[in-house]
Amino acid sequence: MSNSVDRSDRHCVIGAGFTGLAVAAALKRRGIAYDQLEADDRLGGNWYHGVYETVHIISSRRTTQYGDFPMPTDWPDFPSAAQMLAYLNAYADRFGLRDTIEFNTEVTWIAPADNDTWEVTLASGEARIYGGVVICNGHHWDCRYPEYAGEFTGEAIHSKQYKSPAILKGKRVLVVGGGNSGCDIAVETARFGEDSHISMRCGIWIMPQTIAGIPSIEFLRPWMRGWMQGVVMRTLLRIFVGKMSRYGLQEPDYPVFSRHPTINSQLLYYLKHGRITPHPDVKRLDGKTVEFVDGTKIEVDLLVYATGFHVSIPFLAPEVVTWKDGYPDLVNGIFPQRHKNLYVVGIGQPRYGAGPLLTLGAEALVESILIQPKLKRPIGQVMLKLGRKPLDNYLMDPHEVMRNARKMARNARRLPLFERLLFRGATDSQPPPGTAASAAPRGL
Amino acid sequence: MSNSVDRSDRHCVIGAGFTGLAVAAALKRRGIAYDQLEADDRLGGNWYHGVYETVHIISSRRTTQYGDFPMPTDWPDFPSAAQMLAYLNAYADRFGLRDTIEFNTEVTWIAPADNDTWEVTLASGEARIYGGVVICNGHHWDCRYPEYAGEFTGEAIHSKQYKSPAILKGKRVLVVGGGNSGCDIAVETARFGEDSHISMRCGIWIMPQTIAGIPSIEFLRPWMRGWMQGVVMRTLLRIFVGKMSRYGLQEPDYPVFSRHPTINSQLLYYLKHGRITPHPDVKRLDGKTVEFVDGTKIEVDLLVYATGFHVSIPFLAPEVVTWKDGYPDLVNGIFPQRHKNLYVVGIGQPRYGAGPLLTLGAEALVESILIQPKLKRPIGQVMLKLGRKPLDNYLMDPHEVMRNARKMARNARRLPLFERLLFRGATDSQPPPGTAASAAPRGL
Repeated sequence: MSNSVDRSDRHCVIGAGFTGLAVAAALKRRGIAYDQLEADDRLGGNWYHGVYETVHIISSRRTTQYGDFPMPTDWPDFPSAAQMLAYLNAYADRFGLRDTIEFNTEVTWIAPADNDTWEVTLASGEARIYGGVVICNGHHWDCRYPEYAGEFTGEAIHSKQYKSPAILKGKRVLVVGGGNSGCDIAVETARFGEDSHISMRCGIWIMPQTIAGIPSIEFLRPWMRGWMQGVVMRTLLRIFVGKMSRYGLQEPDYPVFSRHPTINSQLLYYLKHGRITPHPDVKRLDGKTVEFVDGTKIEVDLLVYATGFHVSIPFLAPEVVTWKDGYPDLVNGIFPQRHKNLYVVGIGQPRYGAGPLLTLGAEALVESILIQPKLKRPIGQVMLKLGRKPLDNYLMDPHEVMRNARKMARNARRLPLFERLLFRGATDSQPPPGTAASAAPRGL
Repeated sequence: MSNSVDRSDRHCVIGAGFTGLAVAAALKRRGIAYDQLEADDRLGGNWYHGVYETVHIISSRRTTQYGDFPMPTDWPDFPSAAQMLAYLNAYADRFGLRDTIEFNTEVTWIAPADNDTWEVTLASGEARIYGGVVICNGHHWDCRYPEYAGEFTGEAIHSKQYKSPAILKGKRVLVVGGGNSGCDIAVETARFGEDSHISMRCGIWIMPQTIAGIPSIEFLRPWMRGWMQGVVMRTLLRIFVGKMSRYGLQEPDYPVFSRHPTINSQLLYYLKHGRITPHPDVKRLDGKTVEFVDGTKIEVDLLVYATGFHVSIPFLAPEVVTWKDGYPDLVNGIFPQRHKNLYVVGIGQPRYGAGPLLTLGAEALVESILIQPKLKRPIGQVMLKLGRKPLDNYLMDPHEVMRNARKMARNARRLPLFERLLFRGATDSQPPPGTAASAAPRGL
């Protein structure tokens, strides 16, 4: 650590994608010094290197734009990937974020250092000591694969590797998964491939991009509680889309928003035109033959696993957070329970509406960063005592998160008082509830 | 005429497309001898040689299939061109029509001959005398072009020439026309071209293929009168599609079914995604620049005129029918007013539902053919006297046509009685009302 560059006077923001930029803007606005490290050669994250070329956003312009920087009003309701990238670049320029970003700077290790600082090691071998770290490394990159009996001898990729329709040309394609990537790629195959098949393990609620010309997602008003949003959307879907069985799909057997929604008018369109064939779950693979649980078999050339992603922070020293069922035990999905000055932003996946949520969330985060020095304990520990919980899945109701973010920002300055009240009589070094015995408490 | 082959013991069906096959099936069923002449080398007409490769029907399987031959129930709601062609072939085989068809046999001239027979001249030079002729030559081939000031130096085609997305690749394309071909090609361009623009002279009602998962067209029930269908569809569109202005389009200023409907969910989808840019009418062309009436200008590489077709029977001797505003004065769109034993089928364009209508229409036609020998005058003249009118435009309400066809079939055997009553005291050679003075009455 003696060779480390001392940057303990500032924070380190890791990642310059949709999330990292919002955090940087919020830090800058409040005059908090920071460095921003980006592994790639440009900003934009998934919108720069991740998505396929013909993709469009599926929620809507108004629910996706940052709260502090509207997209041009003459843009369509569902901007393209190119527009999204242009927008993120414009955002960086608007708030003067670009010059602070160190590109081609990959982080390989983050570990706690003395006095609640953090040592950040780069791929170049350089190590730096930061006063705090905000991790915004995205959640759409650590591919998840299903396990099937047998072996497939055709071409197989993960949806993440799908970049352009060229790969589909002349191929019989099976997409596994009924999420947004899966449905999108099945639709692309219907257009550009030879034969398009999609396998869904169960019935899925498929929402159209628009209902009556209005982005479906905009029917959900901020004042609606989660259950009410579910009722409203279910009613709209029953009226405007009809039963999923009308499209040859299984009926979903779960409440409409209890899983991440799939938004795809085109899938429904192509199912009606016989250009996509739906199938149930895969049973086994054999050469180029795929057998489904209903006993039917098809031959395919390309298998696309649109089976999602793991939440993953591979460069974070393992003692910092405890992982359970694939999720780190971060309070509110942000705050470690045993460490000060480390924050993870963007693990939760809001149903829609990333932009407004990130703007509010980043503001709340900054309030937390500013109040941490006035707390004896890590803010995560205090919030846990206040009843906040670690996230146990991706799913987030954006409106609830926004309400919480507002509350968090408003209440941050009261945390020192709460801490004194809540931890009265406790010794400072007492481990918080839920701490794994093996994890050494630090920085308390 | 002395060199003509004598086929006066039979009828001649010209064309083996959707319409010609229905007529042939009806003739065969009633034991009326016929020859069927097809200019192309295979049957299917427009579905064989006309449409572009990725097209699907836009009404629905159930409203498009012939009344006497359902499509397979496991076919999608909107079968593809390939399926339509397979269906027409299966139809021909089911009713044993194929062997009667003379392929590669183009008709170049049809003129009245002695004793109410017709001389049919072929491209080979051969001439034949037929007892009767049924013309089913289609109405989607004589391209109509608009006239604009200036000159366009890029590539320009008519929608009829559009066969495959390959032509769109890398091109900035303007499609002129908001009908079904125009919207389809604009959508194809959004997928496969560089930049997709569409020019519509006025606001157009755009219907989605499905409403709540049900083909939109199937909401119109047979018992609904025309005005009621309009009210129902307008209400559905307002609820399910919303105002056209939500898609950046002009609001239509005509009742919903007073023009041929445009059915295209995808156009609406791509407008919402900014992948198709709508424009008003074209004002002038200049090089590769197109100027619109609102003063805006764009540069395009390819201009697609999706501006429709003329009704055209170029091989019919001009004295047989009188043309007015582009439409022949055929009673009910079928019967000449001054000639016996010639029929034109398929000039009208039903809003949807060609199949059931053709089956009923062909049956009614056969009844008319069978009754003609018992009439002194051409059936068209009798029907005119009965109050039937020449068609004055393409538009047809399929349900009304079906009701009329049923009535026509039912009443055919009463026509000799009607003739005696209606023409009491008239000399047989008196020209019917509406006959142009220059046209020599024949066969009366």
